[in-house]
Amino acid sequence: MDKMTTFQPGLNGVIAAETKLSYLDVEAEEIVIRGYDLIELAEKQQYIDLIQLLLHGRLPTLSEQQELEAALKEEAHLSDSLVEILGKLPKGTHPMDALRTGISALAGYDKNLGERINLEKTVLRLLAKIPAITAGSYHLLHQQSIVDPDPSLSYSANFLYRLTGRTPDEQEAAIFDQSLMVYSEHEMPNSTFTARVIASTNSDLYGALTGAVASLKGNLHGGANEAVMHMLLEGGSVEGFRRLLLDKLSRKEKVMGFGHRVYMKKMDPRAALMKEALRKLAAEKDREDLLACCEAGEELMKEEKGLYPNLDYYAAPVYYLLGIPIDLYTPIFFAARTLGICAHVTEQYADNKLFRPRVHYTGPRGLHP
Amino acid sequence: MDKMTTFQPGLNGVIAAETKLSYLDVEAEEIVIRGYDLIELAEKQQYIDLIQLLLHGRLPTLSEQQELEAALKEEAHLSDSLVEILGKLPKGTHPMDALRTGISALAGYDKNLGERINLEKTVLRLLAKIPAITAGSYHLLHQQSIVDPDPSLSYSANFLYRLTGRTPDEQEAAIFDQSLMVYSEHEMPNSTFTARVIASTNSDLYGALTGAVASLKGNLHGGANEAVMHMLLEGGSVEGFRRLLLDKLSRKEKVMGFGHRVYMKKMDPRAALMKEALRKLAAEKDREDLLACCEAGEELMKEEKGLYPNLDYYAAPVYYLLGIPIDLYTPIFFAARTLGICAHVTEQYADNKLFRPRVHYTGPRGLHP
Ligand SMILES: CC(C)(COP(=O)(O)OP(=O)(O)OC[C@H]1O[C@@H](n2cnc3c(N)ncnc32)[C@H](O)[C@@H]1OP(=O)(O)O)[C@@H](O)C(=O)NCCC(=O)NCCS
Ligand SMILES: CC(C)(COP(=O)(O)OP(=O)(O)OC[C@H]1O[C@@H](n2cnc3c(N)ncnc32)[C@H](O)[C@@H]1OP(=O)(O)O)[C@@H](O)C(=O)NCCC(=O)NCCS
Repeated sequence: MDKMTTFQPGLNGVIAAETKLSYLDVEAEEIVIRGYDLIELAEKQQYIDLIQLLLHGRLPTLSEQQELEAALKEEAHLSDSLVEILGKLPKGTHPMDALRTGISALAGYDKNLGERINLEKTVLRLLAKIPAITAGSYHLLHQQSIVDPDPSLSYSANFLYRLTGRTPDEQEAAIFDQSLMVYSEHEMPNSTFTARVIASTNSDLYGALTGAVASLKGNLHGGANEAVMHMLLEGGSVEGFRRLLLDKLSRKEKVMGFGHRVYMKKMDPRAALMKEALRKLAAEKDREDLLACCEAGEELMKEEKGLYPNLDYYAAPVYYLLGIPIDLYTPIFFAARTLGICAHVTEQYADNKLFRPRVHYTGPRGLHP
Repeated sequence: MDKMTTFQPGLNGVIAAETKLSYLDVEAEEIVIRGYDLIELAEKQQYIDLIQLLLHGRLPTLSEQQELEAALKEEAHLSDSLVEILGKLPKGTHPMDALRTGISALAGYDKNLGERINLEKTVLRLLAKIPAITAGSYHLLHQQSIVDPDPSLSYSANFLYRLTGRTPDEQEAAIFDQSLMVYSEHEMPNSTFTARVIASTNSDLYGALTGAVASLKGNLHGGANEAVMHMLLEGGSVEGFRRLLLDKLSRKEKVMGFGHRVYMKKMDPRAALMKEALRKLAAEKDREDLLACCEAGEELMKEEKGLYPNLDYYAAPVYYLLGIPIDLYTPIFFAARTLGICAHVTEQYADNKLFRPRVHYTGPRGLHP
């Protein structure tokens, strides 16, 4: 029965899907998104352009860009009824769990749930609502009032505004938009894979996303950005941070924010971009000390373990200097990744085959009750 | 980079994990559960015994069995606060979505969320609460009052009682318990795989189960049992049902309740057991006509397509004769499968490797914005 007998734990190196969406070309050090280099896109385009690119394979015209902004604005409010549900979650709920519950509950408001004809409409709805749920559920859990969208702001600036309650300046908005771009899509990480596996049963987009939130919550995946920030704060100074990392290494603990299944021995190109963003923000906010800590940690991990920072390592201090509460870093990662995941689910539906692998059974045989 | 270059759509035949829990031995026509034959277990044991077997690898003593029953009873109530949340879901919510939201929200009440030391306590809590959420959310969506557990009834009889509001007779309770056993664990179907993939990021059990509900909702997976019942009712008679199936086949539609990735050309042994249960219930309830329809469909699909019934095909009419609303069939499948999934997540944690496969990229290259 088994067509493959070599077992690769974690499906390491196993091809699980064909995709036209993205590819990590480690040799060329390029994150390919629909044929473009993600880093070049992040330098020259906006997140809103990537929506059109990922869903349709080409960058939008100006009028398409405006239409997209308008469509997203239309769906940016949270219904009173959903706010009530989120408001009833126990106050100790983890923000990723609140996000997961919010997306799961949202399905009940979709009159065309599970229909494939208007799938893109559902995708846009989710791209509008998920930032709203991210920000809203956080404030509700903290008994703060929800920040309504500001119609004068762009998609990403609005998202940042709703997170912090403060209108961002131009550089802040641009850096936040860039962070959303680099988080938007990344081939087949665990959360995207989870979503495709779920979608392959013909289950709907809300379900696929719900599972993906659960996946991203884990500290081997999205949870890393928050862990990084806690380490930086705990370290406090270059010396303190170095000591903390050395301690972790001597206890053979994994250091969050380093390493990556695919580019283990190279720097994640997204991390380099976020490091540049951190440099700018640190200058604006007079926090070069934070940059210095990060660089010291980077240096140390390269020397001690030959490990390089991943995106989460530099996204964390960027979000910190943008004034975003730490608990929100992973939910923001998810909100940005919603785009890539929706594109993958759409692709999975278009040429579906149920995911159903096999196992190596290593238990006993022949027992009788 | 790619250790495997042959791409198997849907990971067909690919080994994704090592497990001591279960194995589909197609040659021997045996569903192996911890060394035992599932069908033999289902004939001689009870669902509660399978809890201990799956979690600890051996059948319980009488006193362990009693302890388990007591532990499950203690957690069988839904808190007022969770009932309020479920009561606020929009009335059109799909029962699987309500279940998903309920499990997701439940995480917020767990003071030890994500802790591994007391994992078994969490598993038992979930085994107690998920049947309660299954029944409770359904009644709330239908503006009916929730059925509180009856402490005099066993775990499965209580579950059936809370679903229907009617105390089952002995044969009904035994058959329902048997159905839970055959649904409890089945190697590496999509939902179990989803849960292991999620858990491999170090995400918690609630998240893994939330993703698994989403997976099981799809009509290529758990959704099939409800689809079968709708077909049986639409057919109405042996002749009507035969015509309906022939119509579907002539339109090249898939017929729900037939076929299986693993035992495509053989009868699912669980289906045979549920067929026996249906025979008994049909006699008790004077509904031999329903059995006749099922048998006619089985015959026709074998002749026309060489396809055999899977478990869902015979579980559906069994649940129908037990008086369970059709919308609840997939949620019940999930409640039963909670056991197997929790055992798999526990196993995944014990020897974890992040699931992170690769892709074949088939899109363009070298584009510039
Ligand atoms: C991302 C990650 C899970 C990928 O790892 P993987 O492909 O499963 O590989 P492994 O975890 O088995 O790591 C391989 C080796 O490198 C070591 N290693 C990997 N990442 C490490 C880290 N961050 N700190 C210390 N050691 C690390 C492992 O301990 C292992 O060493 P060993 O062979 O001596 O046991 C891993 O690098 C990690 O856990 N990083 C920290 C979490 C993180 O930042 N996640 C965000 C990713 S975007
Ligand atoms: C379970 C299932 C998804 C497994 O299928 P799979 O391994 O992915 O294989 P495929 O769906 O590619 O099926 C292989 C062939 O058998 C046919 N087939 C499989 N199940 C069929 C069904 N239920 N009705 C009609 N034809 C079926 C397919 O059409 C396909 O034929 P083709 O090669 O001519 O295209 C499939 O049998 C199915 O969809 N069954 C109905 C849903 C169901 O009952 N699910 C519950 C499973 S417990």
